Amino acid sequence: VSEFELIAELFAPLATAPGAFGLTDDAAVIEAPEGHELVLTTDALVEGVHFFATDPPDLIAKKALRANLSDLAAKGSMPLGYLMALSIPSKRGMPWLRAFARGLGEDQQAYGISLFGGDTTATPGPLTIAITAFGCVPSGGMPQRRGAQIGDRVFVSGTVGDAGGGLVCLRGEGRGIPAEAREYLVRRFQLPEPRTKLGQLLRDLVSASLDVSDGLLADLGHIAAASGVRISVEAERLPLSAALLAFWPDTRERLIRAATAGDDYEIAFTTPVAERERVIEAAAEAGVSVTEIGRIEAGESVVLLDAKGQEIPVARPGYVHF
Amino acid sequence: VSEFELIAELFAPLATAPGAFGLTDDAAVIEAPEGHELVLTTDALVEGVHFFATDPPDLIAKKALRANLSDLAAKGSMPLGYLMALSIPSKRGMPWLRAFARGLGEDQQAYGISLFGGDTTATPGPLTIAITAFGCVPSGGMPQRRGAQIGDRVFVSGTVGDAGGGLVCLRGEGRGIPAEAREYLVRRFQLPEPRTKLGQLLRDLVSASLDVSDGLLADLGHIAAASGVRISVEAERLPLSAALLAFWPDTRERLIRAATAGDDYEIAFTTPVAERERVIEAAAEAGVSVTEIGRIEAGESVVLLDAKGQEIPVARPGYVHF
Repeated sequence: VSEFELIAELFAPLATAPGAFGLTDDAAVIEAPEGHELVLTTDALVEGVHFFATDPPDLIAKKALRANLSDLAAKGSMPLGYLMALSIPSKRGMPWLRAFARGLGEDQQAYGISLFGGDTTATPGPLTIAITAFGCVPSGGMPQRRGAQIGDRVFVSGTVGDAGGGLVCLRGEGRGIPAEAREYLVRRFQLPEPRTKLGQLLRDLVSASLDVSDGLLADLGHIAAASGVRISVEAERLPLSAALLAFWPDTRERLIRAATAGDDYEIAFTTPVAERERVIEAAAEAGVSVTEIGRIEAGESVVLLDAKGQEIPVARPGYVHF
Repeated sequence: VSEFELIAELFAPLATAPGAFGLTDDAAVIEAPEGHELVLTTDALVEGVHFFATDPPDLIAKKALRANLSDLAAKGSMPLGYLMALSIPSKRGMPWLRAFARGLGEDQQAYGISLFGGDTTATPGPLTIAITAFGCVPSGGMPQRRGAQIGDRVFVSGTVGDAGGGLVCLRGEGRGIPAEAREYLVRRFQLPEPRTKLGQLLRDLVSASLDVSDGLLADLGHIAAASGVRISVEAERLPLSAALLAFWPDTRERLIRAATAGDDYEIAFTTPVAERERVIEAAAEAGVSVTEIGRIEAGESVVLLDAKGQEIPVARPGYVHF
């Protein structure tokens, strides 16, 4: 199959926006709505590093897309579209690629976005999916990592640690736990849910915001560093799913794992106390839970505190890429 | 070395635009100037496919960037910046990566652009560089592939086939030719020169335009298909460098190779006869030669004609990716 047949059959139908020219051109044009600016982010997923070769192709596609949509969500953006550079090992045949493209198409519908351009190339190595996604925010309105103020409260959406549990399940552990819990955790690893609506509703309420992809403590560390503050997290407040509670028997181990596992794709954010109620309202409107887990203090870095206010030592706050 | 050290030492200094937040955030913001829209394109380069592992790292970086800048040039765009997803094999150490980043920095200066965001990840496979570049054009002003009209003339910038010759040299052939010619051809392969200024000057003069990256005839085939026309190219008019003339002894073989080799990164465009003089003026202002090589006719596809107007059979019009 040639690159052009690939594009014509699989990817051109995904280029639904007028500015994408049905992938018949070399570039796309994009205009942000009046008074808005574009928000751009890029994330690459590599087979054997970010997903397993045996994962379902439609889920791989969705995870690659959603990793980017999660960044846009935490930045308060309305998603508009994406470009994709796909490096394909020759052993991947058309059935695999068709399922991959179907996954993209389903998520484009779900999130109201279009493919705007791409590049497909052969590779002697692992399948590599580099996506650049873009959305828009009112000009100057993008929540940043810097901006957290002393006294602000720290929140996280959904539950943390599920994907980390799912990854351990996929590696062959966790056989003692109920099948339903196992499936839930694996699904959370394979198919994150970007908090797209929540992120937009929170945009004007947060002082700092980012998506949790490398581990909650590691990612909060970015807010602490960028804002020049200390973040204290109360371990007992961490929102954990019933499935995760069933999976990790030891409480202390479970808390540390949940606070440091990657791939959550939740939003962690800080907000002035005065906005707390509006945050809860926004979460209710978005249909996503948010949990207050800590506060901003003077100082630096992130600490995890037990019920007595004692610091829990954490060897590694998140996923290390190299 | 951690991902964060990599970013802080090598890549943050490249994020010079205010909207890039010094790479301290998860996303960048971009606003096109009033009355303009953004033009986006993406291209990935894979070690062993698009470049050799032994190529100088600064040249690899520049080629990856320039492949994208060449697309923007052919689309009449002023380049603004880029995002880069870099998948790095563990054997690449800091010295290699430093040289790579230095190459990016030099080209950012040369083209007046900024890094806006990125993602670095480990890979068990070949080094893979996925770049998404963006520029701007007056809204609605981007030259497309469709638009060529019967009677229009076909032009190409610079010379064609040099990079193809350089690639053959790098594979160990071409030992009989002068060292200077060999170096010239290899340089054309390793370090393309996007026609950034020319592309902007041509923007309102062309009826269709694209960059020549897969081979002149293959790329002209895209214009023919998108515009619903036939393109006839006169082989004797193809602009060939003195180095290429020294490299390929056989005339017919040389012409076919030059017309089908990839990696030229020149602009091929069509223009109404009435604009011919302004095209020549634009080329003079940009300091780049342009050569009229053919014309648009009724029909379909691309034909290469000899001096007698006979069609030269071409087995493969360009680089095939799969």
